[in-house]
This record gives sequence, C-alpha cells and structure tokens, in this order.
Amino acid sequence: MPNVVFSVDQSRSMRDQAVPGHNRWHPDIPVAAMVKPGDEFRIECREWTDGQIGNNDSANDVRDVDLSIPHMLSGPIGVEGAELGDLLVVDILDIGPVPQETGDVAGQGWGYTGIFARNNGGGFLTDYFPDAYKAIWDFHGQIATSRHIPGVRYTGIAHPGLFGTAPSAELLQRWNRREQALIDTDPNRVPPLALPPLAQNALAGQATGSDAERIAQEGARTVPPREHGGNQDIKNFSRGSRVFYPVFVKDAKLSGGDLHFSQGDGEITFCGAIEMGGYIDMHVDLIKGGMEKYGITTNPVFMPGNVEPRYSEFLSFVGISVDDDDTNHYMDATVAYRRACLNAIEYLTKWGYSREQAYLLLGSAPIEGRISGIVDIPNACCTLYLPTAIFDFDIRPSAEGPKRADRGRCAVTS
Amino acid sequence: MPNVVFSVDQSRSMRDQAVPGHNRWHPDIPVAAMVKPGDEFRIECREWTDGQIGNNDSANDVRDVDLSIPHMLSGPIGVEGAELGDLLVVDILDIGPVPQETGDVAGQGWGYTGIFARNNGGGFLTDYFPDAYKAIWDFHGQIATSRHIPGVRYTGIAHPGLFGTAPSAELLQRWNRREQALIDTDPNRVPPLALPPLAQNALAGQATGSDAERIAQEGARTVPPREHGGNQDIKNFSRGSRVFYPVFVKDAKLSGGDLHFSQGDGEITFCGAIEMGGYIDMHVDLIKGGMEKYGITTNPVFMPGNVEPRYSEFLSFVGISVDDDDTNHYMDATVAYRRACLNAIEYLTKWGYSREQAYLLLGSAPIEGRISGIVDIPNACCTLYLPTAIFDFDIRPSAEGPKRADRGRCAVTS
Amino acid sequence: MPNVVFSVDQSRSMRDQAVPGHNRWHPDIPVAAMVKPGDEFRIECREWTDGQIGNNDSANDVRDVDLSIPHMLSGPIGVEGAELGDLLVVDILDIGPVPQETGDVAGQGWGYTGIFARNNGGGFLTDYFPDAYKAIWDFHGQIATSRHIPGVRYTGIAHPGLFGTAPSAELLQRWNRREQALIDTDPNRVPPLALPPLAQNALAGQATGSDAERIAQEGARTVPPREHGGNQDIKNFSRGSRVFYPVFVKDAKLSGGDLHFSQGDGEITFCGAIEMGGYIDMHVDLIKGGMEKYGITTNPVFMPGNVEPRYSEFLSFVGISVDDDDTNHYMDATVAYRRACLNAIEYLTKWGYSREQAYLLLGSAPIEGRISGIVDIPNACCTLYLPTAIFDFDIRPSAEGPKRADRGRCAVTS
Amino acid sequence: MPNVVFSVDQSRSMRDQAVPGHNRWHPDIPVAAMVKPGDEFRIECREWTDGQIGNNDSANDVRDVDLSIPHMLSGPIGVEGAELGDLLVVDILDIGPVPQETGDVAGQGWGYTGIFARNNGGGFLTDYFPDAYKAIWDFHGQIATSRHIPGVRYTGIAHPGLFGTAPSAELLQRWNRREQALIDTDPNRVPPLALPPLAQNALAGQATGSDAERIAQEGARTVPPREHGGNQDIKNFSRGSRVFYPVFVKDAKLSGGDLHFSQGDGEITFCGAIEMGGYIDMHVDLIKGGMEKYGITTNPVFMPGNVEPRYSEFLSFVGISVDDDDTNHYMDATVAYRRACLNAIEYLTKWGYSREQAYLLLGSAPIEGRISGIVDIPNACCTLYLPTAIFDFDIRPSAEGPKRADRGRCAVTS
Repeated sequence: MPNVVFSVDQSRSMRDQAVPGHNRWHPDIPVAAMVKPGDEFRIECREWTDGQIGNNDSANDVRDVDLSIPHMLSGPIGVEGAELGDLLVVDILDIGPVPQETGDVAGQGWGYTGIFARNNGGGFLTDYFPDAYKAIWDFHGQIATSRHIPGVRYTGIAHPGLFGTAPSAELLQRWNRREQALIDTDPNRVPPLALPPLAQNALAGQATGSDAERIAQEGARTVPPREHGGNQDIKNFSRGSRVFYPVFVKDAKLSGGDLHFSQGDGEITFCGAIEMGGYIDMHVDLIKGGMEKYGITTNPVFMPGNVEPRYSEFLSFVGISVDDDDTNHYMDATVAYRRACLNAIEYLTKWGYSREQAYLLLGSAPIEGRISGIVDIPNACCTLYLPTAIFDFDIRPSAEGPKRADRGRCAVTS
Repeated sequence: MPNVVFSVDQSRSMRDQAVPGHNRWHPDIPVAAMVKPGDEFRIECREWTDGQIGNNDSANDVRDVDLSIPHMLSGPIGVEGAELGDLLVVDILDIGPVPQETGDVAGQGWGYTGIFARNNGGGFLTDYFPDAYKAIWDFHGQIATSRHIPGVRYTGIAHPGLFGTAPSAELLQRWNRREQALIDTDPNRVPPLALPPLAQNALAGQATGSDAERIAQEGARTVPPREHGGNQDIKNFSRGSRVFYPVFVKDAKLSGGDLHFSQGDGEITFCGAIEMGGYIDMHVDLIKGGMEKYGITTNPVFMPGNVEPRYSEFLSFVGISVDDDDTNHYMDATVAYRRACLNAIEYLTKWGYSREQAYLLLGSAPIEGRISGIVDIPNACCTLYLPTAIFDFDIRPSAEGPKRADRGRCAVTS
Repeated sequence: MPNVVFSVDQSRSMRDQAVPGHNRWHPDIPVAAMVKPGDEFRIECREWTDGQIGNNDSANDVRDVDLSIPHMLSGPIGVEGAELGDLLVVDILDIGPVPQETGDVAGQGWGYTGIFARNNGGGFLTDYFPDAYKAIWDFHGQIATSRHIPGVRYTGIAHPGLFGTAPSAELLQRWNRREQALIDTDPNRVPPLALPPLAQNALAGQATGSDAERIAQEGARTVPPREHGGNQDIKNFSRGSRVFYPVFVKDAKLSGGDLHFSQGDGEITFCGAIEMGGYIDMHVDLIKGGMEKYGITTNPVFMPGNVEPRYSEFLSFVGISVDDDDTNHYMDATVAYRRACLNAIEYLTKWGYSREQAYLLLGSAPIEGRISGIVDIPNACCTLYLPTAIFDFDIRPSAEGPKRADRGRCAVTS
Repeated sequence: MPNVVFSVDQSRSMRDQAVPGHNRWHPDIPVAAMVKPGDEFRIECREWTDGQIGNNDSANDVRDVDLSIPHMLSGPIGVEGAELGDLLVVDILDIGPVPQETGDVAGQGWGYTGIFARNNGGGFLTDYFPDAYKAIWDFHGQIATSRHIPGVRYTGIAHPGLFGTAPSAELLQRWNRREQALIDTDPNRVPPLALPPLAQNALAGQATGSDAERIAQEGARTVPPREHGGNQDIKNFSRGSRVFYPVFVKDAKLSGGDLHFSQGDGEITFCGAIEMGGYIDMHVDLIKGGMEKYGITTNPVFMPGNVEPRYSEFLSFVGISVDDDDTNHYMDATVAYRRACLNAIEYLTKWGYSREQAYLLLGSAPIEGRISGIVDIPNACCTLYLPTAIFDFDIRPSAEGPKRADRGRCAVTS
C-alpha cells in the first residue's frame, strides 16, 4: 500500500482531523503534505457533505443538507518542483470506499444518491422533481445494489468527482468576477445561477487568523468545474486513468475528494453519483512547460483507464432541443439531453418504477450521455445510452409490451 | 442480397430517377414502394447534396453548394399495417458505399467532409472558421484515409445520418410553427436560426400538380432532427442497430439517406461526416400500439449494433461553459462541448496540423462527445474522446513534447 | 471497389473458370495475376467444396461429399519483388458473401455448417457424432440465423479459413515426408491421421501437361495449416486484420479461399464454420528480409481487426484432460477442449436442443476456445466461452432450472 | 467490508494460524467456518508456497522451493444446506493483495513469477528452459511493473488460481486411481507425469490424530484441476465472475487460494502468474439439484466479470502441432500452443529481451491463448494474443525492423 499523505478519521468531521482539509479554492491554503515527481501515495477522503447523510429510509437529510459545507476536500498536496506553466501528470492507481470498515458514514460499505430539493440545491430536472428523494446503495466488491431501486445491479465506475490544482490569485479573481456577473443577471433565482464566495462554514485547511478569514471571504466555491479541473464529475476518471492538470501556482497544490462509487454521464440529480468517502492512490509526475508545449491551458486533458465495466448492449434514448411546451431552442445540447433523460424516465415508468426511482437510477448507473448532433439547425440531438445488462429483467421493447411490476419505492421526505 | 425497393442510378440526379425521392417532409408525399412487417429489403441512396461536391483539391464547391437541394432522401417506403401509435422496428442489416463502382459521385470509392462557410450553412465553430474547406477520403474496405489529412487512418462507423417516418399534418404544422417562432426572434441572423419551408428546388417524390406545389410550400426542411427521427446524425445507427420509430401516419412512410462512412459525435463541421451515396439493408417490423405501451412518443429509441470499431485508449479533452472571453454561461452543454472541441483543435495544431485539418478530422473521426457533468452550477462539463489509435504517430503527451511535422493541407477555396 | 484480380463465375466449377484456381499446394502452379506492393485488389472465391452442398433439409450431400476436391483456392497471386525471406504483409480490407446475388451456391445469401461422417472426413467429436448432419444459415447483413437451430441469432466474424503463400520445393518435400511418417504409424485409421498427395481431382490452375501431372502427384493437400499459413481456420482473420506471411518462393504466390461467414474457435465439426463463396479485398506490402529480422519463420503472425462483434457476457465451460472413461491424459489440451465442448453440448441439451444441433451451433457461433492452464500436471484445462447474447432466451443457470422447449431439428441423412 | 470467515496473519506460516488451512484435498478435513446461502464474506489467503519466495534478485529460492508444501489453501468453508448434486454459486465480489501492508511476503505490495527448474517442478517449456528464473513485480493499484522485465506495464486480471469444493470419498479414490495409472506408464519421468499423495508436509486443517494421518496418506495433491474445480488457473475468474461448482459432499466445503495478481492463458512457466497472498470477497448461493438440472457434473461452469482490462490491438502468434524436429503430431493442441509460445518468445528476443524474460512475460501478462483450429488433420492450430499496449515501445512489425535495446535481465540462480 502506498504511503498515506493525507489521512482521515471517518468518525470525525474534516474540521477535526489532525490535518484538516478545505472546502473553498484559494491559492493561499497551506500545503498539507509534499510529494515528489515519481511518488506514489494515498489520499483519504471524506464524503462530500462531511457526513450529513445517513443510511436510512428518509430523504429529510437530503432535503435539509447544509450546502455551505461541501465539498470537503483533502489536500492541498504540494508537488516539488511544480511551477506555473507545467502540466501535473496524475495517474489514478486505485480508488475505493473506506477499506476494512463498516459504519454510519457513506463509504463504509454503502453510499447514497440524492435528488436535491429545488429550494436547496436543485438538479438537472429540478422543474420536474422539486422535492428531495434518496436511494441507499450497498457495496458488494465493485457491485452496487439498492433496496430503494430493486431489480438493478451494476459494477461501479469508481472515480473522484473533484480534483484540481489551486488557482492563482489572478485566476481566482477571474472566477469570482465572471460568476458574479452571471449571478447579477438574475440575482434572486431559485436555484441560483451560481454560488458566490461564502464565509459561513468555510474551512481553510491549516490556515489561521487573518489568512483563514481572507480565504473564507475570497475562496471560490467548489461546485463548478473550472480551468484547474475541480468538480468535473467525469465518471471516466477511473482506475488506471492519467490526468494532465494545468499548474497555476508553485507546488501545484492538488486537492480533491467527492469520491463516487458510480455515476452516470451528467450526474443528473446533482447528487447523482453514489457518494462515498474512501481513498485514492496516485502517482504524480511533471511535464515542465507542458501547458504551452501542448496547448493545455484552459482545462485538463485525460486518458481514461481500461478497466471500466464493459457492456455490449444499450437501450438509447434520443432528445432534441425542443421543450415539452414545443418551444424550439437553438442548438441547445442542455435541453436536448434533458429531453433524452425525460424520455428515458418515461420509458422506465412503464416497467413499474416511480419517476423518482428512474431519475435516481439514471444519475448513478453507468449510462453514457452523448452529444450526437450539434449542427442541424435548430435542433441539437443528444442521446442517453442505458446498458441493458444492469437490469435483472429484459428491459428491451418487444411486441409483448413492458412487464410492469411492483418495484418498491425510494426514500422520501416526511 | 435483399430485394431493392428503392433504386438509384448514381449517374443521375435524384430528380431524374425512375422513381424519384424527396427533399422535404410532408405526409402527402406518395409511397414509393410498399413492404410488409418481416421483410428485408435494400434502399439505395444519393449523397445528401445530390452530387454537388467533387473529388478534387478545391473547396469552391463546398463554398458554393446550393442548400435548397439537400437532403435528397430515398422513399417513402410504406409498411403494411402501420398506423398512428405503432412503433416501427427497423433493423439496420447492412450499409455501405455504392457497391462495385468507382466514379465521380461521393460513395463511389470516396467521400468528403466539408467545413461550410458562415454565410452558406455554417457549422458548430463557424465563428472560428468562417470560410469553406474540404477533405477527400478514400475508402479501403471499412477504413478511410485522406490525402488532405495525412497521418490518420480509421475504421468507419457507417450509418445513415437521416431516416424518419412521415409527420402527420398536425405534427408538420407544429414543426413549422415552432421553428418560425424561433426564426422570428432574429430573422436576419447569419447563419439563420432555422430554415422555413422553401419551394425552390423542392422535390416531392411522385407527387404532381397541385399536390407537388402544396408539398413544396408546406414541406418541412430536412436539416433538423425531430420527433420522427429525421436528421439525427447519430453515428451509432451502425450495422446491427435496431431503431424504434414512432408512427404518425398510415403506412409509416419511412424515408432516409444522408449516408455517412464515418462521423464523430456532434458532426461538428455541419458536413462533418464522411458523406457518401450508397445502400442500406433493412428489416422492418411493427409493435402495434407501441408508442403508448412504451412511452416512446417524442423521439425514436434505438439499440446500437455490436460491431462498431473498438478502441481502448483515448485522449480526452474537457470543456466547460465559459467562453473564451470569460463569459460564464449557465449550464450550457453546447458551449462546453464547443470549448472541448477548441481545446482538442489547439492540441492537434501542436503536432503540425492546421486548425482546419484538425476541425475536419474531429468532425469525421470516431470521436465520442460526452455530457459529463450537467449539474455543477454554473458550469456544464463536456468531454471529447479522441481514440489515439487512429494516428500513425504517438499523439499522447509526454515529457519530450509534441513532434511537430509537415502534415500537408486540406482543400481550400480559390 | 478495388480491381478484381481473380474473378469467379459462381454458376460454374472452379475448373471451368476463365482462369481456374487450384486445390493442391505446389511451388510450380503458375501465377494467375500479378500485383505490386501497395496495391489494393479483390479476389473472388468459390465455397470450399466447389459447390457440392445444397440449401435443403437433407444431410445426404454432406455425407457423400467428395473430399478429393476441396479446398478450391483462388490464386496464386504473385507479388512483385517478393523473395524468399521476406514477409508479405496482407491487410484484409473487406470480406463478404457473393455480392448482389441470390442463388443455389453457398455464399449467395446463405451458407451451411456440416458435421462430417466418421468414414468421410470426421471431426473433433467424431467418436460421439459418427453420422452426417447439416444446418443451413440465412444471411441478414452481417447476421446469421438458421431454420435448423432456432432461437439463435448472431453477428458473423467473417474471415478466410485458408490463405497462404506457396511452399518452396524443399518445404513441400518436408510436408509430404513428415505427414507420411505420421500416416505410417496407423495407415488404416478411419478417419485417417493425415492426407497424402492425391492425383484424383487435383486442379493445378493454369498448369498443363506434365507440369499439371507432376503437381497433381506431388502437391500437398490443403487441409492442414502449415508454415505458410494455409488452412489455419483462425476466426479472427476478420475485417481490418493485418497478416504477416513468410515468403518461400519468388513472387510469394498467395492463394486462398474457404471463406467463412462465421466460425467458433476450433471449428469443431470440421466443417464447423458457416461456409460460403464470396470475395475478399486486400492490400499487400512487403517487409524485405522480414523473416530473419522478426524471427517469423515457422508460422504467420497477425493482428486481428477491431470490428469483431463485441460481447460482454459469456457462459464458460471448463474441460480437463481426463476422458469420460476416467483415463488421465498428460497435459493434453486437445482432450481438455473436447471435454469442454462436450460439457457445453450437455448443457445445451437441457434447453431442448438435440446434441447435433448443439454441436453445429458450437462449431459456427462466435465462441472462444481458450487454453487456460497447461502446466498443472497432469491435467490441461481448457475453456469454451459461449456469448449469452446470441440466444433469444436467457441461457444462464438459475434456481428455476432450464426452460426446455421444442427447438426443431437439424438436417439429417435419409 | 464483508465479514472475514477465514483470517490469515501474513507473518506466520499457514500451519501456525489460529485456524490453519490445508494443502491436500480430502472430504474429511473439518470445516473451518460455516456460511449461509446469500452470505457475503472475506477469505484471506497465503501465497501458494506459504512464503518460500523472496523479493530479491536471485532465483535460488525458486530453484530450491519445497513442492511438498503447496498449495496452501484457506478453508474449507461450509455452506449450510449444500448437498451432493447441488450447484454452489460463487460470486467473486472482490480480490486483491494483502491490504494496507508492505512487507516480505508476496502480496505485500509485490508478487513474483517463476520459471521452475526441470528437476523441481518444470513447466510448459521445460525442455527449452531447464533452469530456474524469477521476476519480481511491483504493484501500483491494479498495475504491475517489474525491474526484471523493463518496458512493460500492465493491468492485472486478478483471480484465484485455485478454488474448489471437497471431493467425496469415491471421487477422491477415482482421482488417486487414475493419476496413479498415468504415473505407472513412466514412473521415473522427470518431471513426473503426476503427483501421488504425499504425507510429507501435509497439512489437514483442524484435523488431528489419526484423522490427520489418514488425510495426509490419502489426500489428493492440489496441483491439477479436477471435477470440483481445483487448480484451474483460469485467469478470467476475475472480479465480478460467477462460478457454478458441483457439490460432492455435505456443506460443499469450499477451499482455495493461490491468488494471482495477473496471469496469461496457460500460465506457461508453471508459476507463471504473478503470485501473491491476499484476500477474496465472495457471495454464495445454491441451486438445489443443479448438477442434474443443468448437466454440470464433470467440471464447474462460470461467467467471467466485465471489468477485465480492455485491449483493442494484439500481436498474435500462430503455432501448429509440428515439433521443431519436424515431427508431425496428430491434432495436438498442446504442441500447437507450445509452438505459438516459442514463436512469440523468438519474436520478443529480436527487441532485446532474453528468452527467459520473454517466457516470464508471457506467463504473467494478460495474453490470450486460443484453440483456433482443431479439425484440420493432422495439424492443430493454436494462437497466442499479445496485447501491444503493455509495451512502452511500438512492438509491431514494420519495414524498419525491430528496435533492439538493452532490456536488463531477470533474476537467475547463483
């Protein structure tokens, strides 16, 4: 096992760890541990909400989650010799839930998927699903099953939802400026268009005093993906992946967490992955001056691993950028994918799943979301690939019609 | 070989065939041939522009293409017993370029990819590539190479860009109404937001007289995908696929064409696929009342085939919904995929390709375009997966830096 | 379409073609056509028995087949500049049944699989299946179905069973010598241990007079694979493959045929593939001196293509080198694979297939045959991977037990 | 983490564990732990030699290994309700090396591959490689590299080499009888044809006194695979696999071990896998009366998992059943695969590897060994598929010839 450079005691909040992590992005958060190019090491991670969600049959905790707390990140890990302009090469050697333990915290043998309420987070289909729901998943090796979504069983594509290098001061300013400009176009929107810095519940790692205060005031929220990586939620950052991160500050300052046991493309319920705490093993290296050499300046580049679960049969749902009120949006892939998702949900209800179960399923299962056509004016065309093998019944259309059955129900609010 | 129910003489325009096809959607275009559920048959197709593009080193023909002519479709094929509310099950048994022939028409041993000029069609990156360009591809069995993009060689995922059932009169009205409403928001835009019905160059199959005139006046343009399928440009409608089309009129009236030797997800140059004439072999069947049974009402559902080319290593580019002027768009997957495409183009130029070559390559090669994250406000995250095996050199980042070479040039305008 | 350098009129015997092929291996068979390194070309092929088997429901033709006639090969194709010691690089660009035709000869829309009688050919399980049986398969694009084995439908891995370069005179002598030595160990065995040269029905291409007579007397039979390739029956010589053949004579003299629409590893019924006439498109090149450079001297090396049908679920049968009378063979992979095949047949009968149907199925379907353990004295361990998706019912074991059904019957002798 | 039902302290011999395992097969070895159908549990395992091989650069330990000790198995695990005639369904949920530890025992961050000396074990190519050699592999997540075989890096297909149910007394007698009959055909052979029961170093779990003595006298050796499974060394018993074992005794009595980090088909060096201690997580269930229902009586059946590493390009070597002295064996797949292996070794030496390095590589890397043709008298045809992506240089043949380099050396004897 590689050396643990950031350790977590899962019985405590990230705030109370020997070396605490952080939940905002800022260049001045102190390095928690240093590694060298060529090193292999382990980072332990808390579940993204720092343990607010329980293994039970009520969605009240999802409804009431305090979103000023996430994402609780482990790090920053400094890489010796890293400088602005380099590429930080990260190999994801292994990843998994909390080893050797069972317990009350997500990652200890179980995980969860949540539909967030419209007035507390929302999600991709929040106009259609304004309330909170939850599904608990049990882990069996790499396989997940849920008492809340029976009839489904699949191999997880475990990955970190969130890893990134620290922004420079200038880059941080750009983020805050452009996101505030977006917020200003509709400042009272629910859910909001973006999240400005928020001092409440900010955690700045080992920073103290005025440094910690400044970080809390200025630090960028962790929700969106940005130039440094961040919360990309790319399900294919799986075992064996190699990621090339731009470096914006001395020592690179790599941080991350938000581990997912599985996720579908889009993570459509917002908390659509199977969330867990756990560990990630990495190998790091540097390509000096790599940003300019390869033109990798605005986002990371990566190579997915070769052990993702293999499926050979898919049921694929099409969506185009025409809304359900027949409004025609111009080349809008977001609308098109939303329509594909809604088409898939409609299909799944014919077999007895509730719409909420179907939504939770599509957020967490290894579905693929594709931008199929993006030039045929005015309609973007997106497709959602659902592997048929994850169902323990035959989900394909046939002349007999769908076999409706009692498929239980997911966790709801009281 | 299955029975040919729609035949094409590739030396003539679609207008001059014994049984001509059509280039507008309308319920009253007469059936060209009837088949029965359970039948296997062949449909021959013209290249989408009806032969306007030549196998040469000038992009003038792309610049000057008459866009009132496409897409030239074969059909309609009537299916006995099909009624409103059924699902038409179409198995794509085989597909290919014009068999046994070499010649001057795309599909006769070669095909092309075009970047359309901003003032005549445009494309996904038309703000960055306002002029016309072209690449000619030679076919070697299922493999394509191009004298205009050397160093690349890949297996095509052959598929029809466009197939669909006929709209009902009501559905046609909805299309025209909603698209006109969109046009009306910016009627002078170049390129236009959508294309209204256009009598010029309309071809209505075997309809004559006032019927033909009415069809020309009312018929929907073929560019966008819609509820009936249409120009979905889904590259995975490959050999062995099964498609479930909603049926809106008696006999279903299936039409199609726009065959592609290969295409990347998004078909980003607009004419991004390798365009060709050729043939498609189909088997059809019906699921009576299937639209209601399965909830498949707004778009087709399909199952891709299992012989698509297999790759195990990808270089993946990330894009988020922040434009290059730092404008932050809210959850805009279109912008995010555009950024991923531009990031990939930038990367490819480091190896010696021109930006136009890179754009042509990404339109036609078997890239995958994924909606990776669509909930992390405000930034959508899309990813573009480029198979490394299509290059005859090692395209991966390394400490050595990219190997720049003379990679020739694509066809340009004079 | 590439230039046809060897053409076949499927209504005639190979003997009666304008340029006839050959059915024995000999260095002196005259070149039928010359090509250059870098050329792409098409070769048309007769079905291996030269048309002795019909599309009907009787296995009498299989029982009575004249085995002095096969394999009817197309060629030899001479490659300019090829010399002893070179490697001939052959890309399989495309392959398929007889295009654009339906008819009475295998390859014209249909093919067959045969179990050969013990006293006329035999097969891998001839001690268990001494009589002749047959299954006819219908082609639907790349998919095969059989009225003789209902409930099964699969994508073919089309490939040539047999291609090879001409042996030198010395190599031919070695072949005849070593095979005669084997025959001499049990000269009256039925089926025979090997097949010596046989003048009866020998066809020597365009050779005439004493040359033709000598070739008939000396020419090696085409059944076994040998150093030059020959009848390797490797199902993975599929579209997109690249093969490196040793060159033993001037111009290489490449010949082949025995096209298969599909085959399982082992081709266990002897005529286990789905046999067909058709065409193969090739590109050739040379690696001068490649045999020594790469140490490729005793057999070809190849790289399979990347469009073979993809399966993700298999039912795998194990066999070890202990015979059914409990005789323990030492590390005998042949016995182990035989046991795996018999185990699979036994399993399939529980679902209602006859033993003969099961045997025919395993010969032709895309099964994989693996040498799993070959060191654990005294028992070799082989495994047979059966893709579950080729069945239209669920073939996996479960607590409910197998669903036995009437599965029809294959063609038998009268 | 599932409940540990068989635990191992890796600092001690299997003999000295709190509950010791066993190294012979016998129905009377007492159950070490009971589980119920539906249970998930963990079994910890010693490396197969019980720790005789060290992480160093000498092959002396391989040369001198005491082969009366292996395989050290964990178990037997009793399954409640299992009876003769049932099928025991085992899902392999997870498997891996010793977690959270580094140390001196294989599995603690490293593993090894050995070529065994002809006079102490031998192997598939022992006539060509009579001496002992070794390679040490370092684990990086699921990836292995070796200082003894530089230039190679691959993802392991982790699996148990050996798992099986206990034989009945009758079955045990059959094993001993038939193997002795084989030994008697050449009792002085080196290496021996098979291994008879051997009391020396026998370990009978918790049996004591005369029971232990009888087990030591009668117990079958663990080397060969047999009807109950046993040492099948099937590399595809990977994560996510489901195995159906015949049950021969009350409670089934499942035992196993011999974990492999990786292995090629055939495990050709005898100790060809990357050997390790570690853990395996299982779920068990029963199909009552399943042996008769499904005809699964002579060997297990299994379904491989869907997370095995994916490769899309292979270099494939062919072998036929003609030995290097031109002796023609009749349909001998063992000889054919041996020739394919030797052809691959010859090829690898052209790039600078020693023959021993190449042999060690082919034993442990994820190669596939196929029985391609087993009916074309007299020559069986086998093929070895080597994934090209495991090399950090381009291993494919080209006109330039192979790039020979200094590739170091493996561990040798002193």
